Parts: sequence; C-alpha cells; structure tokens
Amino acid sequence: MSAEIVPLPRHDATLDPMLALTAPGMNAVNAVILDRMQSKIPLIPALAGHLISGGGKRLRPMLTLAGAELVGYQGNRHHKLAASVEFIHTATLLHDDVVDGSDLRRGKAAANIIFGNPATVLVGDFLFSRSFELMVEDGSLKVLKILSGASAIIAEGEVDQLTAQRQIETSEERYLAIIGAKTAALFAAASRIAAVVAECDDVKEQALDDYGRNLGIAFQLVDDAIDYDSDAATMGKDRGDDFREGKMTLPVILAYARGTDAERKFWKAAISGHRDGDDALEEAVALIAKYDAVADTRQRARHFAQRAIDALSIFPENRARAAMSEAAQFAVARGY
Amino acid sequence: MSAEIVPLPRHDATLDPMLALTAPGMNAVNAVILDRMQSKIPLIPALAGHLISGGGKRLRPMLTLAGAELVGYQGNRHHKLAASVEFIHTATLLHDDVVDGSDLRRGKAAANIIFGNPATVLVGDFLFSRSFELMVEDGSLKVLKILSGASAIIAEGEVDQLTAQRQIETSEERYLAIIGAKTAALFAAASRIAAVVAECDDVKEQALDDYGRNLGIAFQLVDDAIDYDSDAATMGKDRGDDFREGKMTLPVILAYARGTDAERKFWKAAISGHRDGDDALEEAVALIAKYDAVADTRQRARHFAQRAIDALSIFPENRARAAMSEAAQFAVARGY
Repeated sequence: MSAEIVPLPRHDATLDPMLALTAPGMNAVNAVILDRMQSKIPLIPALAGHLISGGGKRLRPMLTLAGAELVGYQGNRHHKLAASVEFIHTATLLHDDVVDGSDLRRGKAAANIIFGNPATVLVGDFLFSRSFELMVEDGSLKVLKILSGASAIIAEGEVDQLTAQRQIETSEERYLAIIGAKTAALFAAASRIAAVVAECDDVKEQALDDYGRNLGIAFQLVDDAIDYDSDAATMGKDRGDDFREGKMTLPVILAYARGTDAERKFWKAAISGHRDGDDALEEAVALIAKYDAVADTRQRARHFAQRAIDALSIFPENRARAAMSEAAQFAVARGY
Repeated sequence: MSAEIVPLPRHDATLDPMLALTAPGMNAVNAVILDRMQSKIPLIPALAGHLISGGGKRLRPMLTLAGAELVGYQGNRHHKLAASVEFIHTATLLHDDVVDGSDLRRGKAAANIIFGNPATVLVGDFLFSRSFELMVEDGSLKVLKILSGASAIIAEGEVDQLTAQRQIETSEERYLAIIGAKTAALFAAASRIAAVVAECDDVKEQALDDYGRNLGIAFQLVDDAIDYDSDAATMGKDRGDDFREGKMTLPVILAYARGTDAERKFWKAAISGHRDGDDALEEAVALIAKYDAVADTRQRARHFAQRAIDALSIFPENRARAAMSEAAQFAVARGY
C-alpha cells in the first residue's frame, strides 16, 4: 500500500518530514530574512522581528524549498525567493492584524497592539517592498510575474472577505473564492516558483501550483474549523475571533444553510454583530456541532488535501514527495 | 537672459507648460490607470476611484512623461510605467490617510472616512501589487530595481516620520532625510525611469534623478510651509493638520530653534500633544511668523528648486526643459 492511498485523515501525520527535508535550506532562508528585514530605522526590525521571530511555521518558504527538492534543483536562487515569499506573507499578516483589530497573533500580543496601527501598516509596506527587491535581485521576470500576480490576488481576496463580512448570505462558493485568493494563491505561487528556478516544463510547474493551491485551501478550511472547535492555545489566536468579527467561514455557512428558521434568525443577529457575547459564541458552537459543520468543514479540507497529494503523482516517488504528501495529511490532521 | 537664470521665485510660474507638454501622454497614462484599477471586487475600483478621480495633479507620472520628452524618447513604454508610479503614490496616500487619521484629502472626505481603515489599507495593497504587475509587463529589471528600491525607501521614510512625530528635538537634517525618503525618492525614480526606457547614458539618468529628487524636496518643503501659512482650500487638507498630529516639519523646527526658553516650552507642550487646540495653533502660527519660519522654509525650497533646474543643464534647451524648469519655479511659487 503506497503512501498516496492511505485514507485521509492520517491523524498521526506531522510536519516533521517536511521540516527535516527543508531544514538546511531554511537556515539559509532565515539568514536572508533576518538580514533583509534590517533598516537604519530601528522601529522596522523591532516591529518586523516581533512577528518574524514569533514562532510562525514558515510553511510558505518551506513549500518553495520542498518543491525545489522534488524537482532536483541544485542551485541556491530559491533561498532568496523563499524569503521573498515569507516577506509577502508577513506584510499580509501585519495588515490583517490592523484590518481585524487583532489582539493576539501566534499566541503573542499582535504587532498592532504593541506598536500601534500606523507603524504596523507602514512596516508591512516596507516588507512588501523588500520582497520585490529580493525578487528583482534574483532577476527572473517569470518569478516576478507569478508573485506580483499572487500579491494582487491576495489583496483582492482580502477586500472580498471584508465585503462578505457580516453578510450571512455568503455562499460556500464565494467563501472558496475568497480563501482561494487570500490564502491559496500564495501557497500556489510559493510552490510554482520552485519549478521556475529549476526550469521545469509547464506540466511540472502547473502540478506544483496545483499542489500548493489545494494545500492552501485545505489549511485555511482547517484554520476556520478550529476557530469553532478548539481553544486559543491551538491557533495562537482567540477562539471565536472569526465569530466576533462576523467573518463568514464554512462552519457558519453550513450551520446556517442546514438550520431551522429560528436558528437562522440567531445567525443573522450574531453575524450582523447584534449578538456577539460569550453566550452567543456558545450557542454558535452548539449549532455548528448539531449540524456537524466543523466535521464537514474538515471533510471538505480532506478533499482538497487529497487533490494536493494527487497533483504530485507526476513526480517520481522520493523523499520530497513523501514529505509534501504528509504535509497535506498534516493540514487536515491539525487540531484534532 | 535665459530661462535658467531668472531668479527664483518667479511668482507667476505655473504648471501650465508641464501640463501642455504632457497632455497627450497623460491621456494614455490615465487610460492605463482607469483600466488597471479595475477588479471583479467592486469595492476596489470604488475606493481607488474616489482618490484617483479626486483631482490630484498626477505630478509624478507627468515627470516620467516630461523626462521622456526631454531625452527625445519615441516609444510608449513610459505610459504604463508612469501609471505604475501613480499607483505607488496612490497606495502611499491611502496608507497615509489611515496612519494620520486624515479627515480630508484633496478637499474631499478621505477614503478612510468613507470606506473605513480596513478597506483603505487593503486597496492600497492592491494598487501597490498592481503597480508591480505593470512594471513586470514592461519587463525592465532596471526599472523594477529603481521602483522597488524607491518603494522600500518611501516606507522607511514614513516609519521614520512616525518615529519623529511628537519629538520636538527632531533636527533639520533628520527632517530632510525623512522628506528625501517619503517624498523625493519617488519624484527621483519617476524622472529617472524616463532615461532608462530611452536607454540614455548614466549621466543623463543621474541628472533626471537629481532633478526629480530636488524637485520633490522643494515640493514637500512648500507643502509643509503652507500648513502654517494658508487656508485649507489651498491644500485640500485642514490647515494645522501637521500641528495637531505633532508632525515635525521645518517651520516648527526653525521656530523652536530660534525661540526663547518660554517659547520652547510652548512648543514642547504643543508638539507632545498637550496643547493642540485652536488657540495653540494660533500661537504656533504667530511664533512661526515672528521668526520668519515659513518664509525661510520657502527659502530652503528655493535652494532645492534651483538645484533641480541646474541639474537639467546637461540637456539641450527645448520645450521639455523649459516646462520642467518652470515646474520647479512653480513648486516654490505655490500658495503665495
């Protein structure tokens, strides 16, 4: 029985093979990140460092490194580009924290709480500019096109999410479009550029893009499930954050769709912000459990994780492919 | 007597020759701007359009066009790149309005007031990404390097300005470094890329950079003078905005440096935010007048405008050079 057809979810799946695979490269990537977040303006490394040293998994640059291993790339261009991907992600997180008015990020006070919204917005801009400087130093217009395109799509997804906020009628289709843009586009780009630096053919490039995109959707689905499923320690953010912000995620969409008229009335009040206290959160969690909406959100994630794994089937079975497949299993197993 | 040695300021200087010179090209640039601010997410063109149609002078793209005329460039690559420059500027303005909590921009309600901070931050990000997409479409790594570098410097300048806010001891040197980064870097880059697309030698490229940089400093100095000198209608922003925000600009720096102990005490209280009412603003304006600090800020601007004009001396005398020289005169004459 090969690794690919172990039924999902494998609850014992971890990120360890991925971490082991990419550890040497990640040292180089981390050195670039630390070096290039510096500035003669001390507030910049202080604020950026707060988030960057804050214990993120650095999954996106890891995808670039794993993809490079998968296709047998021998150079080192991907280190700088992986750092560039992480800078885009970090800039997005900083702006997200301002947009959401977050209190916590990765279990610590969010940057906006410590440094204020103005500095958080501006340091995000700095990191975003720096990420393009890194790409320009690498010099591939193809990579620049992929990552500038992904950046525009991320911003569109974030705006779309904002527009859908507090809108109870948001459909699953629209939700999938939003997470496809705000999360999965960068996963896809991070994976794809590995094929670009290795000068792979279009089929391999597309396969890595497909892997990253489906993995990103699976990750976001599980993130959104966990917000109604688990305590703040798991995610490093407050449980129920999405609920209080009136963010339309799949657990809510499913519970609302399957609910009675009375329940729908509750959801309308809750998502529009008229009921957002702890008792409302408890009621929301209970309704979501009643309709298996967390379990079914995870089931949807399994679907995308499997698509990610299957997208790798054109590549030879090797250590990188096994690690990337297990990462997709892990995406689904998180928080159980 | 040639145009170059007419003593500054020529109070009748206008932007008209610049507008006439660049009018045909600006039609093409505006078409790119309108086309590329579109998105399937309706909030994006709505918010971007609010600012973009809000009556800005579009001076930065005009510099690219004028520079291209100056060096006899015959192609049309500069249209897309000029739009890219304007997108960077627009993104910066949107984020500035969030950072400053602005009420007015160009005489209208600022985007953050109408659309809220979250959407304003995210649409800024979108326009910034779009600007890089436009550069990538053009395909010059040299232009990408110039504009990504300028973007990082702008963000550093904005953070530095934030750090200097409410710090009465901010020196003129630091102030010049801040405006050199937050304002003049994009003026310089906008001018320089005209020489790049026209494949000029390094001397011409540097001369256009010098022109733009000095012009940008002159513009910002006069903007900062006007905030203590004139009514809101002139600038399309509230008079005294800088004062209330505790922003350290040259009129304040000079009045503080030249003040008595009692006056310095007032400035410390005012800039630290302990005195920011209308009576405090009146006192500030009176002290600035007492020490000729607005007039001397304008005198400093004249110095940089003259350097901008002199930087053009390596180019043949033609219509473009005359228009660019008068634009530098206009920078100083504004608001009289």
